[in-house]
Amino acid sequence: MCNRLLLLLPLVAAPVGAADDVLARVAAHAERFGAVSRQIWETPELGFHENKSAALLEQELRANGFEVRAGVANMPTGFTASYGSGSPVIVLMGEFDALPGLSQKDEPEQAAVTAGAPGHGCGHNLLGSAAALAGVAIKEELQARGLKGTIRYYGTPAEEGGGGKIYMIHAGLFRDVDAVLAWHPGDSNRVNLGSSLANNGGRFRFYGVASHAAAAPDRGRSALDGLMIMLNAVEFLREHVPQETRIHYIITNGGAAPNVVPAFAEANLVARHPDSQVLDGIFERIMNCARAGALASGTRMEFEQGTNYANTLPNDELSAVLGRAMQKAGGYEYTPAEREFAGKLQATLGAEVKRAGPEHVQVDKSEPPGVASTDAGDVSWVVPLASFTTATFVPGVGAHTWQAAACAGTSIGRKGMLVAARTLALGAMEIYENPGEAAAAREAYRKRLAGRKWTSHIPADGKPPLDYATK
Amino acid sequence: MCNRLLLLLPLVAAPVGAADDVLARVAAHAERFGAVSRQIWETPELGFHENKSAALLEQELRANGFEVRAGVANMPTGFTASYGSGSPVIVLMGEFDALPGLSQKDEPEQAAVTAGAPGHGCGHNLLGSAAALAGVAIKEELQARGLKGTIRYYGTPAEEGGGGKIYMIHAGLFRDVDAVLAWHPGDSNRVNLGSSLANNGGRFRFYGVASHAAAAPDRGRSALDGLMIMLNAVEFLREHVPQETRIHYIITNGGAAPNVVPAFAEANLVARHPDSQVLDGIFERIMNCARAGALASGTRMEFEQGTNYANTLPNDELSAVLGRAMQKAGGYEYTPAEREFAGKLQATLGAEVKRAGPEHVQVDKSEPPGVASTDAGDVSWVVPLASFTTATFVPGVGAHTWQAAACAGTSIGRKGMLVAARTLALGAMEIYENPGEAAAAREAYRKRLAGRKWTSHIPADGKPPLDYATK
Amino acid sequence: MCNRLLLLLPLVAAPVGAADDVLARVAAHAERFGAVSRQIWETPELGFHENKSAALLEQELRANGFEVRAGVANMPTGFTASYGSGSPVIVLMGEFDALPGLSQKDEPEQAAVTAGAPGHGCGHNLLGSAAALAGVAIKEELQARGLKGTIRYYGTPAEEGGGGKIYMIHAGLFRDVDAVLAWHPGDSNRVNLGSSLANNGGRFRFYGVASHAAAAPDRGRSALDGLMIMLNAVEFLREHVPQETRIHYIITNGGAAPNVVPAFAEANLVARHPDSQVLDGIFERIMNCARAGALASGTRMEFEQGTNYANTLPNDELSAVLGRAMQKAGGYEYTPAEREFAGKLQATLGAEVKRAGPEHVQVDKSEPPGVASTDAGDVSWVVPLASFTTATFVPGVGAHTWQAAACAGTSIGRKGMLVAARTLALGAMEIYENPGEAAAAREAYRKRLAGRKWTSHIPADGKPPLDYATK
Amino acid sequence: MCNRLLLLLPLVAAPVGAADDVLARVAAHAERFGAVSRQIWETPELGFHENKSAALLEQELRANGFEVRAGVANMPTGFTASYGSGSPVIVLMGEFDALPGLSQKDEPEQAAVTAGAPGHGCGHNLLGSAAALAGVAIKEELQARGLKGTIRYYGTPAEEGGGGKIYMIHAGLFRDVDAVLAWHPGDSNRVNLGSSLANNGGRFRFYGVASHAAAAPDRGRSALDGLMIMLNAVEFLREHVPQETRIHYIITNGGAAPNVVPAFAEANLVARHPDSQVLDGIFERIMNCARAGALASGTRMEFEQGTNYANTLPNDELSAVLGRAMQKAGGYEYTPAEREFAGKLQATLGAEVKRAGPEHVQVDKSEPPGVASTDAGDVSWVVPLASFTTATFVPGVGAHTWQAAACAGTSIGRKGMLVAARTLALGAMEIYENPGEAAAAREAYRKRLAGRKWTSHIPADGKPPLDYATK
Repeated sequence: MCNRLLLLLPLVAAPVGAADDVLARVAAHAERFGAVSRQIWETPELGFHENKSAALLEQELRANGFEVRAGVANMPTGFTASYGSGSPVIVLMGEFDALPGLSQKDEPEQAAVTAGAPGHGCGHNLLGSAAALAGVAIKEELQARGLKGTIRYYGTPAEEGGGGKIYMIHAGLFRDVDAVLAWHPGDSNRVNLGSSLANNGGRFRFYGVASHAAAAPDRGRSALDGLMIMLNAVEFLREHVPQETRIHYIITNGGAAPNVVPAFAEANLVARHPDSQVLDGIFERIMNCARAGALASGTRMEFEQGTNYANTLPNDELSAVLGRAMQKAGGYEYTPAEREFAGKLQATLGAEVKRAGPEHVQVDKSEPPGVASTDAGDVSWVVPLASFTTATFVPGVGAHTWQAAACAGTSIGRKGMLVAARTLALGAMEIYENPGEAAAAREAYRKRLAGRKWTSHIPADGKPPLDYATK
Repeated sequence: MCNRLLLLLPLVAAPVGAADDVLARVAAHAERFGAVSRQIWETPELGFHENKSAALLEQELRANGFEVRAGVANMPTGFTASYGSGSPVIVLMGEFDALPGLSQKDEPEQAAVTAGAPGHGCGHNLLGSAAALAGVAIKEELQARGLKGTIRYYGTPAEEGGGGKIYMIHAGLFRDVDAVLAWHPGDSNRVNLGSSLANNGGRFRFYGVASHAAAAPDRGRSALDGLMIMLNAVEFLREHVPQETRIHYIITNGGAAPNVVPAFAEANLVARHPDSQVLDGIFERIMNCARAGALASGTRMEFEQGTNYANTLPNDELSAVLGRAMQKAGGYEYTPAEREFAGKLQATLGAEVKRAGPEHVQVDKSEPPGVASTDAGDVSWVVPLASFTTATFVPGVGAHTWQAAACAGTSIGRKGMLVAARTLALGAMEIYENPGEAAAAREAYRKRLAGRKWTSHIPADGKPPLDYATK
Repeated sequence: MCNRLLLLLPLVAAPVGAADDVLARVAAHAERFGAVSRQIWETPELGFHENKSAALLEQELRANGFEVRAGVANMPTGFTASYGSGSPVIVLMGEFDALPGLSQKDEPEQAAVTAGAPGHGCGHNLLGSAAALAGVAIKEELQARGLKGTIRYYGTPAEEGGGGKIYMIHAGLFRDVDAVLAWHPGDSNRVNLGSSLANNGGRFRFYGVASHAAAAPDRGRSALDGLMIMLNAVEFLREHVPQETRIHYIITNGGAAPNVVPAFAEANLVARHPDSQVLDGIFERIMNCARAGALASGTRMEFEQGTNYANTLPNDELSAVLGRAMQKAGGYEYTPAEREFAGKLQATLGAEVKRAGPEHVQVDKSEPPGVASTDAGDVSWVVPLASFTTATFVPGVGAHTWQAAACAGTSIGRKGMLVAARTLALGAMEIYENPGEAAAAREAYRKRLAGRKWTSHIPADGKPPLDYATK
Repeated sequence: MCNRLLLLLPLVAAPVGAADDVLARVAAHAERFGAVSRQIWETPELGFHENKSAALLEQELRANGFEVRAGVANMPTGFTASYGSGSPVIVLMGEFDALPGLSQKDEPEQAAVTAGAPGHGCGHNLLGSAAALAGVAIKEELQARGLKGTIRYYGTPAEEGGGGKIYMIHAGLFRDVDAVLAWHPGDSNRVNLGSSLANNGGRFRFYGVASHAAAAPDRGRSALDGLMIMLNAVEFLREHVPQETRIHYIITNGGAAPNVVPAFAEANLVARHPDSQVLDGIFERIMNCARAGALASGTRMEFEQGTNYANTLPNDELSAVLGRAMQKAGGYEYTPAEREFAGKLQATLGAEVKRAGPEHVQVDKSEPPGVASTDAGDVSWVVPLASFTTATFVPGVGAHTWQAAACAGTSIGRKGMLVAARTLALGAMEIYENPGEAAAAREAYRKRLAGRKWTSHIPADGKPPLDYATK
């Protein structure tokens, strides 16, 4: 009931300054791209399998005059869409992959559409659609005003672990880019110099010797023992790494049958830290835990590299541009029905919410440490990039929850998406109008890079792990 | 190559005493039931899914004059086949389920027919076929000599964990039975008073609270933590249970995604001990480990009852009958090709084999402790039952190995199967000829039971877990 | 050699403003109390056993006209020393206990005076002496100027875990106090609104059943198993508590003989968090881990309450007083010999030191989270209290290290101690001169308290655990 | 009360065959050596510190005409006592060390004489005294009858872990010995071909990096973590070693203070198995667990060799001699007071006792696997040795318990001791009378040795760890 109401509510934009033509263009396409975001939300697809989602966005951009190149960097769902020529070259990034197991209706109580199926718990249905909406508005504005420059939309698959952007970096797609303007769904409208966590991870595989677990357990060497000794050791590690570190894992194979000593076992582990270099040191200690598990259990261990994202380098200059843009873009207000939905959802959070509402816009120069990881971090090591969040989720709702998945399908999500599109459009236009800002962004980037060089444990072999989310 | 040779070799029976008409009848059907065993070997089916295997055996028995009742005890692949009337009522039991992951060609090196597919690593293709072969011979002999009594074949599904026989006990199918003659494939021809291990097990499920593992791990309560704390505690238990105890487990669900604190985790655990009552005490301590895991991790634990087999009560009287029968039945000798196959297979065992060859028959009154578990154990608590093994596997080869699966498809397996059929036929005939032995067997059973009563944690609700092997 | 040089170096105070008579009084007694600090450093005594240290300070204060009451709050080494009458009542606190195992010479390399013996790794020899020096100077100044008010010195034993101050609170010794001015040795001169970590801890005792570990391990129930299952579970807890939490433990009894299943085992565990209330929740989860250890191992668990210190509530008003005082007090400079000593010591730290030198004074309103715990925290919940550190240790040196113990015996430690005495004296005099500040401090205290009430798990039964450091 | 009664009860020997002069001699000295056993029981001394106990036994043997050599093999409490000359050379072994923490009154309820003090929980006060009593009787008999041969008493210290006999082997003291007749206190009178468990063990020491556990846990590397990861791994090992294996450990150092990351931690671990060679393989896997603990925790591990005892090789010939001797020696009966004492003690055992009483003598050729370890095992690898037990403890009472320590001080213990002395005396006399038996024993020894050679991880450097029991 509730969701139907929300779905039909008009997408009312916040009041707009008179001269802002690009905002009018955003408003003109808002309903269409809101519907696009809803369509992607209704067909959630896992990383590298976003066939419908990518195709829909490609089609919309093509229909609006972009030149689309599909299947870039050996990724069937990776694409670029481009308009204009010459610099400044500005890239908007669109993610559209869903998360496993987070299927959820657009209701304020936990209810899967299909139990166990994927869902948009990170709001990427909005992410990719808002960027496309902004891209179309910018293109029209550039065209109308005859401004020099290139606007591009990069369809970046598999942000949730597959690292589509890293393959696009390796493929050289960021080489001529002046600035990347990025955003992510969140529970408030906010621009600052926050970063993301570097992460590194992969699959630890143990190989032992099978044996009948009742008749001859002493002749077996348990791969699961090796894995558990490793993981127990990792738990002991927690006390002795910097407190900002995160280490989390699941066991993806814990043996075939209880009456057989497991000859194979596997865990998928991810570690994170605000600094890629510190993380490398911690990860080597995790590797030692894995080696110890094999040594102590008489088994063999193999590691398969998985996700490896760098932390995001903030860009002071582009961040200032986006701060100005968001202040102009403004927040939004809940309708009574949305307020009711928000209240019900917050009641499920188990803690009082003390965060600013969607009508607020927060812009400052703080540098909050990240709490999540993204392959946008790697992009920030190779070109100037700034990022922001908007209130697509009810205040207090975190990413990767059913509550986030619910919001992403409602008018609340679409209003937040509109704030994002408006901010991106205004931000980009400021750069086109003042090309010096691209140079300043480049300088700010160099300063944060401080002579370091981007590296990644993900090999530059152009072979994305297209089955990573389903194997 | 090798296997083709073996497949074509004639099944030469050991020399037979003159008056043993029933052995001649066994010989007459040997080739047909050898082919049946091979056909079942070629289409390995998991417990409760033995549709082709059960249908084939039902059809053979029906064609040979048995009255077949299919789908007994709410099990689609459970059936009874009966001939004759009145007592003594003798039951031969036929198992025919395969084991997951043991797909294997009939070659002396590890090579799956289909990687990851089931295979007959416990030789049940031979087990069910030998019993059917014996049944047909006995039926013909009873018929020819006009002897009083009933011969039955019970098709008992899902011995590997599903406990088909227990549902048949609950359904009353053993109430009027005088004696059960059972056998199992092994690596030697042997009759003694050995037992099997009682076992008990099931699925331990932990339910926690999901949370983003990087952003808010402190708000999550990890179901996997609960499981690992439980399993670690179980490891500490090992030192403080009788050394004959066996506890083994696999982790069947270790979380959904590394970046989400697992809200669900599950292990499948089995414990065993030579005595059901001691095992109950140990299992309660394992339950305490599980409760402790939940308590320490702030999660919730649920237990779903799985396999629960009693230890086998030996029957001194029936065992003596089978001993005499096997001595008359005799062993068998390898052909040169079989000898070569056996040598190659033994070379893969990693240890010198010091066991008697298939030409030997071992009969004594020793009571070796069991190393495996079987639902035949439960049957032995409700009616007189005795059991033996024959050399279907090359000496040194243990059950639940690829080597066993390989043997079960060769002429070696079929020669061992023939020893079994001959022993069953001779043993049954001795009882029909001397009905007093049924009473003696009943008395021997009462003595071993010693006033105890069979109980099972598997509920008498007539709802077999038909999906246990595939879920 | 080096230390002898350092010992003989004159204690040169930083330049002093003309009118600051109290600073001249500090200077007049500096050499004497420097020697007192050295004498305490040479006879390090564990908590509640500081007999020589307390007696020496009592004697010095008595000799300087203080009225001394020894053995307060049922603690032989607890005492109060008082001069003057009426309000404002200002308390300076003196700690003087050493740490086990930190015996160290006053040299820049690790070298115990007596291996395994206690040492002043927290610089409490300086702490108690500086407060006494300031107390004497303040007393003389009050006397000379005929100012109204009371200056007290509280000799507070056993800060390192025994919680002497808590027993003094329970004994009512803080009831009429207006302000407590506290300090602690550190590696820089610094006043801010920093806090300390609340802590809570004690001894977890497991009781099992002994048995011969080879002959009948199954009849034993291992207390050590219970303890290890608990501690393993605690390791899993680390991921799911706020990252500022600290949990650390030692095993104080891990069994009597390897061939006996341990009937007793014990750990001493401490947990910390910036907020007492959050800590209480975390500690309850640790208790659940302990209960789980007992449950899973079939043993019994008992908890004996140990240290429980509240976090420090900052006092904005008194902190401002101390900030002004320290700016007037000034820092100090190294002599060439001290500089050499500092350089050698820093070279042992294994990391480049990026901290301000002792010539700097840092005063701000930042609120850095604490990294250690102190029973001064509890005092701050019952009366206005502010605290600061001075550079008694070479920059980069942390408390509870041999490097800190070395510094505490040198002229570097004594120079830092002089900065502390000067700051305390100036701060106290400002309050005596402006009694309104006491009321303002009370108001600031009420604001930070925010209606909460001090509680402690340490019972108000007046029975300090006098043997806690030696049992 | 009760014990006083028991103490005063006359030591009534079982009826004796007429011609057995040596038994009359045993009877003549029984009261004196009973008192000796009581005196040693009243002054329990730990291994290598048995100064009073050894001195008392040396004095008694010297007084009875033995030539005593004290302080052999660099052990102050090791000694030999000899009478006669030439072969056969028969050795009786006397142990006299107590166990830590087993102080116990001679009452049927747990009550320490001195809490925490040592006690004779293994009955070695009886062991050494019975052998001395037998030695004196044999000496008198040899003397009276002018028989050729040598009788020796070896005072072998520190059987409980110190391995006194191994140092005596290394010192060549067994080179000219024909037969060793050994016994051990037990709960029944029994001769068979039982063995003991080989054992191996020592101290695993971990060295980490200390750090303040609250301020900088990430800079610490916890030695205790290394130890716990090792020990957790050892728990996982239990499933995958032969079930007769025993692995047990205590933690002898688990850190110094909870607020310091432990830089040192230590465990004392012992492993056992019926076969020395299999044990060596298992111990290497335990070493791998220790290495894994160091690797995973970033610490360093050192191993200090401790106890290493071989399993006992049974001697068929000497065992037959002892069997005949015990049958002649006979058991004994309880007085009413002893029966009451026994009943009360058994009531504390928590399980019904189903063992034969002390009036029974059990002699057979069974080969029960051992449940404990002894350095008599090593002796059995270098010379013919046989052993037996007598009922010095109430049936059902195991060694290393307070119940055993209680019995060892009562008339029950002394009656059992008398059975032992009678058996030893009769056995030795049979050999002196039939010297061919010594050669037969040598042949039986060679057969069991089967070409193997005695080795020990305890170095032949003649430096016994005299402080092993007290450090």
